[in-house]
Amino acid sequence: MNYRLKIQYDGTRYKGWQRQKGTEMTIQGKLERVLSVYAGRELEIQGAGRTDAGVHALEQVANVHFPGECAPEPGILKDYLNEYLPEDIRVISADRAGDRFHSRLNARGKRYGYHIIKYGRDCVFQRKYAWKAENVLDINKMKKAAGHLLGTHDFQSFCSRASKKKSTVRTIHTIDIQETEDEENLIYEGNGFLHNMVRILTGTLVDAGSGKLLPEEIPEILEKRERRFAGETAPAKGLFLEKVYYG
Amino acid sequence: MNYRLKIQYDGTRYKGWQRQKGTEMTIQGKLERVLSVYAGRELEIQGAGRTDAGVHALEQVANVHFPGECAPEPGILKDYLNEYLPEDIRVISADRAGDRFHSRLNARGKRYGYHIIKYGRDCVFQRKYAWKAENVLDINKMKKAAGHLLGTHDFQSFCSRASKKKSTVRTIHTIDIQETEDEENLIYEGNGFLHNMVRILTGTLVDAGSGKLLPEEIPEILEKRERRFAGETAPAKGLFLEKVYYG
Repeated sequence: MNYRLKIQYDGTRYKGWQRQKGTEMTIQGKLERVLSVYAGRELEIQGAGRTDAGVHALEQVANVHFPGECAPEPGILKDYLNEYLPEDIRVISADRAGDRFHSRLNARGKRYGYHIIKYGRDCVFQRKYAWKAENVLDINKMKKAAGHLLGTHDFQSFCSRASKKKSTVRTIHTIDIQETEDEENLIYEGNGFLHNMVRILTGTLVDAGSGKLLPEEIPEILEKRERRFAGETAPAKGLFLEKVYYG
Repeated sequence: MNYRLKIQYDGTRYKGWQRQKGTEMTIQGKLERVLSVYAGRELEIQGAGRTDAGVHALEQVANVHFPGECAPEPGILKDYLNEYLPEDIRVISADRAGDRFHSRLNARGKRYGYHIIKYGRDCVFQRKYAWKAENVLDINKMKKAAGHLLGTHDFQSFCSRASKKKSTVRTIHTIDIQETEDEENLIYEGNGFLHNMVRILTGTLVDAGSGKLLPEEIPEILEKRERRFAGETAPAKGLFLEKVYYG
C-alpha cells in the first residue's frame, strides 16, 4: 500500500531532506526511522523535493510503500508519526495513493517562497526564516530582471552542481515579488528547479535590486552557462518549499 | 534627555520583561545592561507593559532618560542597542520624547494578541508562538462569551495576583476573534490589563468554545471576584503585546 504524506518542517536544525551517512539530522532520516519502527522493517520514503540543509517546507510531499500485511489507516499513520517525530517536523496529512504514485517523478511543478527582511528593518519572529537585506532593494529593477528569467531556459548558470549528463533546462512560470512593510518576498513557480537554483536566482535578483547588476544583463548570464556569472547563493534559512503540483 | 523606544522580542528564552535578582534573562535587564555600557553609568528603562515569562512583544514601548552630557542621536542609539542586544530582542525605533513622557503611566491602552492552533492542526512555524487547542472550538460561543466581557468591569476573577489595595476595574474595548485555516486568533484592546488577565480571559473563552462553560455564565464569574471561578491561565507562548496606545 502506497501513502502520500504532506510534511511541514523547520529546516533550521537539519542537514536537508536527503538521508546521509554519518548524521541522523535529515528530514528523510527522521521520517524513515519512525516509519520503520511502525512497520517493523526498513521502509524508504521518497520526497518530491530534496531541500538543502537549513531550507524549510510548508508542504513537502512524500510517498512511502507499506508491505501489504501492514497497511495502516492513513489517520492512524499520521498520528503515530506526529507522536514520535520531533516537533519541528509535522505530517499535516496522510492519504492512500495509487501504487504507481511517486512523489518526485510525478510532480509537475513546485512553488518556492523566499523571504527577505528589508534593509534597516528588523523582525525578531522572522530571524530564522528570512535573509536580512544588506542594501535597499529597488523592487522594480528586481521585477524587470525576473522578467528575463521567465520561460524555458538552460539554467546552468543558476545551478551549483550541474552534471553534464542531466539537462539543466527548466521552465519558470512565474516569479512574483511582493512587498510588505518589513519584507520583500519572492515566489517562484516552475516545472522543476536545479540544485540551489532558487537561492542563486534570489541572489541574482537581489543584485539587480541593489544596482550591482542591470536587469538587461540577465540574458547574458543565462547564455554563459557558468555558475560564476550569476549572483551569490542566498542563505538557506529564507527559503521555503511551499507547494508541489501534480497532474 | 528622554528617549522612547519601540522594542520587539521573542519571549521564549526570557523570564519576562521585569528585571529580577538572580537572573540575567529578562528583557529589561538585557536592555539596561547595554544602555549602561553605552552611557558609562547605570540607566533604568521603563516598559509600558510588564510581560510575563515566555510572553512576546511585537511592539513594546519603553523610555529611558540619558544624562544631559550624553544624549545620543536616536538613530545611533538604536544601532548601538541592536549591535549588542541578543538577536531575539530588537529595537525597531528610537525617538526623543518629552522629559515627562513615561511609557507606562502615559499609556492609554494596549492591544494584545493570542494565537491558538486549531484542534487537529499543526503548524511547525507557530509551535513556539501559539497554544495548541485540545478541543474543537465553537467560534460563535467564544464570541458570545466575549461579548459579556466587553466594557468596564471589576476583573478580579481574571487576575492571578490581585492586590487588595489596587483597583481591579478595567475597560475592555474590543475582543476580536478571527479564524484562519489553521488558527483561532484573539485580539484584545483595553485601557489596561491586570496580571495574567489576557491569558485567563483566553482560557475562559476557550472553555466557552469547547462547551465546558456557557457564555451566559460569564457575568456570574465576573461577580464572584475570585480567580478560581474563571478558566485556566492559557500558556504564555501564545501571547503577544502588539501595541501600546498613547493620548
